[in-house]
Amino acid sequence: MKIGYVQSSPIFGNKRKNFEQIEELITKKKADLIVLPELFATGYTFISRKEVDNLAEGKNGETANFLKDISKKTGAIIVGGFIEKVGDDIYNSALMILNKNIIGIYRKLHLYYKEKLWFKQGNLALNVFEIKGFKIGMMICFDWFFPETMRSLSLLGADIIAHPANLVLPYCQKAMVIRCLENRVYAVTSNRIGEEKRGSDNFLFTGASQITSYNGEVLSRAPSDELFLDFRDIKVINARNKKLNDYNDLFNDRRIDYYRL
Amino acid sequence: MKIGYVQSSPIFGNKRKNFEQIEELITKKKADLIVLPELFATGYTFISRKEVDNLAEGKNGETANFLKDISKKTGAIIVGGFIEKVGDDIYNSALMILNKNIIGIYRKLHLYYKEKLWFKQGNLALNVFEIKGFKIGMMICFDWFFPETMRSLSLLGADIIAHPANLVLPYCQKAMVIRCLENRVYAVTSNRIGEEKRGSDNFLFTGASQITSYNGEVLSRAPSDELFLDFRDIKVINARNKKLNDYNDLFNDRRIDYYRL
Repeated sequence: MKIGYVQSSPIFGNKRKNFEQIEELITKKKADLIVLPELFATGYTFISRKEVDNLAEGKNGETANFLKDISKKTGAIIVGGFIEKVGDDIYNSALMILNKNIIGIYRKLHLYYKEKLWFKQGNLALNVFEIKGFKIGMMICFDWFFPETMRSLSLLGADIIAHPANLVLPYCQKAMVIRCLENRVYAVTSNRIGEEKRGSDNFLFTGASQITSYNGEVLSRAPSDELFLDFRDIKVINARNKKLNDYNDLFNDRRIDYYRL
Repeated sequence: MKIGYVQSSPIFGNKRKNFEQIEELITKKKADLIVLPELFATGYTFISRKEVDNLAEGKNGETANFLKDISKKTGAIIVGGFIEKVGDDIYNSALMILNKNIIGIYRKLHLYYKEKLWFKQGNLALNVFEIKGFKIGMMICFDWFFPETMRSLSLLGADIIAHPANLVLPYCQKAMVIRCLENRVYAVTSNRIGEEKRGSDNFLFTGASQITSYNGEVLSRAPSDELFLDFRDIKVINARNKKLNDYNDLFNDRRIDYYRL
């Protein structure tokens, strides 16, 4: 199975340009799974609810259409972030798409910083989507900080965590090594690069998108300041065996009666 | 508050020598908390149940007496590992001692590798002990691999995790950075050094004992192959504030209704 990421540099508010940027990077590369950054079509640093509202879409909007188009060209399952509008509610969401079909939607459970001003907290169950024989879970950016997110997805059977991100803190790439190791799953973290100076915020996004192996090995890490795309071949069967050695199985060894969570 | 560790090199089966080694390292240093390695009095690589049984003790045995003596000399709360015998059952345990008093006992919840042949799984509730105004939780070595251990102790109010260890895998020191960051607690990992070639096993213990800060900073890291002792001044108040920024509180932000643990 070939999995990978696109690391882009979104121009705030310019969906057309942001779609073009991704398209030029991907061209017609064949893969099984491609992960795009969080909010890759819109940018991240909003200064008003109205601005967010103007960039929001339904799950069958132009961003979904773009993802369907990319999926068709590459044959890949595509995961990417978008601003999801449902009635009056707006979420920081991700879509999983294959060809013309929406396989799943994820709404960010743990909102970071001022996202709390613009978005409603995610209200969909954590879920693993089985497609093409692979089991894929989604989480978005800051969700990594909470070990419960990837633990839940892994216990639900995920082989791979698709992880669109807009990272501004320096920890996530190192943390994903531990997250993958403790759960014995693969992860693809697609981060953006570039700077957004808007309102009182000035965010420098850290790039260094990463493919992390079930044993904690970093299979690919992008530069911190360049448009980038990379793929790796993996064997999902590795993520289905939770045995660390002849005596330890990381899931069977959990002492759930003693945890106070 | 001054917290620290002793990194020793136990001689298998020779409690007297192992006590002396610790005593010479500590001398009369004053501190608030000193953590010693897992099974520091006995060594680790057993080849029979009988051997384990011969080295096991009650909670008021000679290892407890030694810890009481060290506590008296240093004024510190002492945490160290021992083989605990309770009736016919044997546990890989840690004692927390201040002066002549046993403050708490912890029995390792997650046994590593052949420990499963010798020890019974821990059967005491995870607990945080409030002493001298500090809240201290204990875990032993491989417990770090399961995020639930430190998460539970932190949710129970721990400021500091006292972590006796006999590490043979290369991950723990890096993982403790993430564990402390995700829970905003301090940790003292006291590891041993040296090699034990017994039966079919040949373990090289990795040293690099570590004091890790609530923000993921490594405050002290020992060499991988030397007897060592180190202390750092910390402010427990930092571990009682779970706010990462004006918008995020790492405990309040947990979405427990959505976790599938």
